[in-house]
Amino acid sequence: MPRASKLIPTTEGFDGTLGLVFDPTAPDEVRATIAVRDGLCNPFGIVHGGAYSGIAESIATASTIYRVHRTGQGAIGMGNDTRLLRPISEGAIHAQARTIHTGRTTWLWDVDFHDDDGRLCATSRVTVALRTYRPPPEA
Amino acid sequence: MPRASKLIPTTEGFDGTLGLVFDPTAPDEVRATIAVRDGLCNPFGIVHGGAYSGIAESIATASTIYRVHRTGQGAIGMGNDTRLLRPISEGAIHAQARTIHTGRTTWLWDVDFHDDDGRLCATSRVTVALRTYRPPPEA
Amino acid sequence: MPRASKLIPTTEGFDGTLGLVFDPTAPDEVRATIAVRDGLCNPFGIVHGGAYSGIAESIATASTIYRVHRTGQGAIGMGNDTRLLRPISEGAIHAQARTIHTGRTTWLWDVDFHDDDGRLCATSRVTVALRTYRPPPEA
Amino acid sequence: MPRASKLIPTTEGFDGTLGLVFDPTAPDEVRATIAVRDGLCNPFGIVHGGAYSGIAESIATASTIYRVHRTGQGAIGMGNDTRLLRPISEGAIHAQARTIHTGRTTWLWDVDFHDDDGRLCATSRVTVALRTYRPPPEA
Repeated sequence: MPRASKLIPTTEGFDGTLGLVFDPTAPDEVRATIAVRDGLCNPFGIVHGGAYSGIAESIATASTIYRVHRTGQGAIGMGNDTRLLRPISEGAIHAQARTIHTGRTTWLWDVDFHDDDGRLCATSRVTVALRTYRPPPEA
Repeated sequence: MPRASKLIPTTEGFDGTLGLVFDPTAPDEVRATIAVRDGLCNPFGIVHGGAYSGIAESIATASTIYRVHRTGQGAIGMGNDTRLLRPISEGAIHAQARTIHTGRTTWLWDVDFHDDDGRLCATSRVTVALRTYRPPPEA
Repeated sequence: MPRASKLIPTTEGFDGTLGLVFDPTAPDEVRATIAVRDGLCNPFGIVHGGAYSGIAESIATASTIYRVHRTGQGAIGMGNDTRLLRPISEGAIHAQARTIHTGRTTWLWDVDFHDDDGRLCATSRVTVALRTYRPPPEA
Repeated sequence: MPRASKLIPTTEGFDGTLGLVFDPTAPDEVRATIAVRDGLCNPFGIVHGGAYSGIAESIATASTIYRVHRTGQGAIGMGNDTRLLRPISEGAIHAQARTIHTGRTTWLWDVDFHDDDGRLCATSRVTVALRTYRPPPEA
């Protein structure tokens, strides 16, 4: 029997680990703000690249799921290409996600990350595959 | 004054958040094994894409730092392109990192992730920029 | 009526433009060798990044088509991520392509490019989507 | 002696091979329009992924060179990540390039490709490295 026989509450999964909260049903852009803390940083005190990748992947995947759910489809992340442009070491990370392609089989999201001064510090391109939805079995 | 006036211990930074332990000084390939747990998963119980990205970024960046340190250089992650090929939902994630290019200004790492059965489940290509090293000021 | 009502002979399409010849049915690795010439170079006499991307895309897509054809599927390129590591300005480009993932819906190819001295000069990661094959209508 | 002892005229290099003409000194966005022809297509009559990559790489690299030239710097393409979203088989390819990051050591360009109906058909993210300019030796 696979370990995951029921849904993991968001707060106990990777989003909880990151401290990520967002509204995947937001029309147009989906946004999130996360305060910088040691647990998101590399040893030099700047936000870790994996934190951006994780935030981008979560927002893009969950937001796709909400958008295609009514058509009987699910979605799963295929890939995540994150570019680190400028370090953030204090204040908050401001994420902003929008689709740039909503195809029949894949969706493409661009997720931009700004610092408190509005400077672009990282950007992720996330590919999400649409799938026929199979709900996890009841526990 | 910037928040990061001293080094963050590995266990309190993003590596600690992930539960990642590895030896960046290992010759040739750098390896890490991480047990799957809810805090690394998406709500459906499969390892979150951001977890792979984070592991890859940490291994590539730290291992580059150790290798170029003696030449008076530092290193900083520039980007992380992670492909998700097959879900892992139990057991452990086995990461394996090797350089495919060690240039004067950038290094390129391929980090492969296998499950307990040896199947390739994700792969990351991490770009690390070499920089003149400026140590953080003393606290 | 769409412009392309029949197949374009390889020598008259983009492969012909590049001067690319290869055997997409080769088992394991697919290889190609292309002599450097001005028409593949940027103004500074080094092989243009787009030449590597084009070679990689052609080899990966055509080789996937040959491999899945018998199952009634076709294939189409989804994306091409090419890294330029070291310039080639003379001799030949030696391309070497292998699958790193052959999934149900997408295949991933790594295409490495070496110079005459066996140095890795560029590498492409090509994503190919499998599709139900619809042959082009007869002219 | 290296083959490239002098500049290759644009019309005889890869831009000429593609049939690409653009003004790299255009302020803000740099644009190009290329008519679809067999020599840019795959055997199925749709524009080849390598054509998009080539156009993107040329525009991004040349436009960076023009912008940094006065500061005594040159530029060289580091990588090109092209996503193919929708086939173009007739009419023209309309390319539109803009910087999303202009750092000290690397610039990042997004190059979007639309068809005649204004639909986004491909998009490339091109990384260009800034370098101290060394002019090619006189012939």
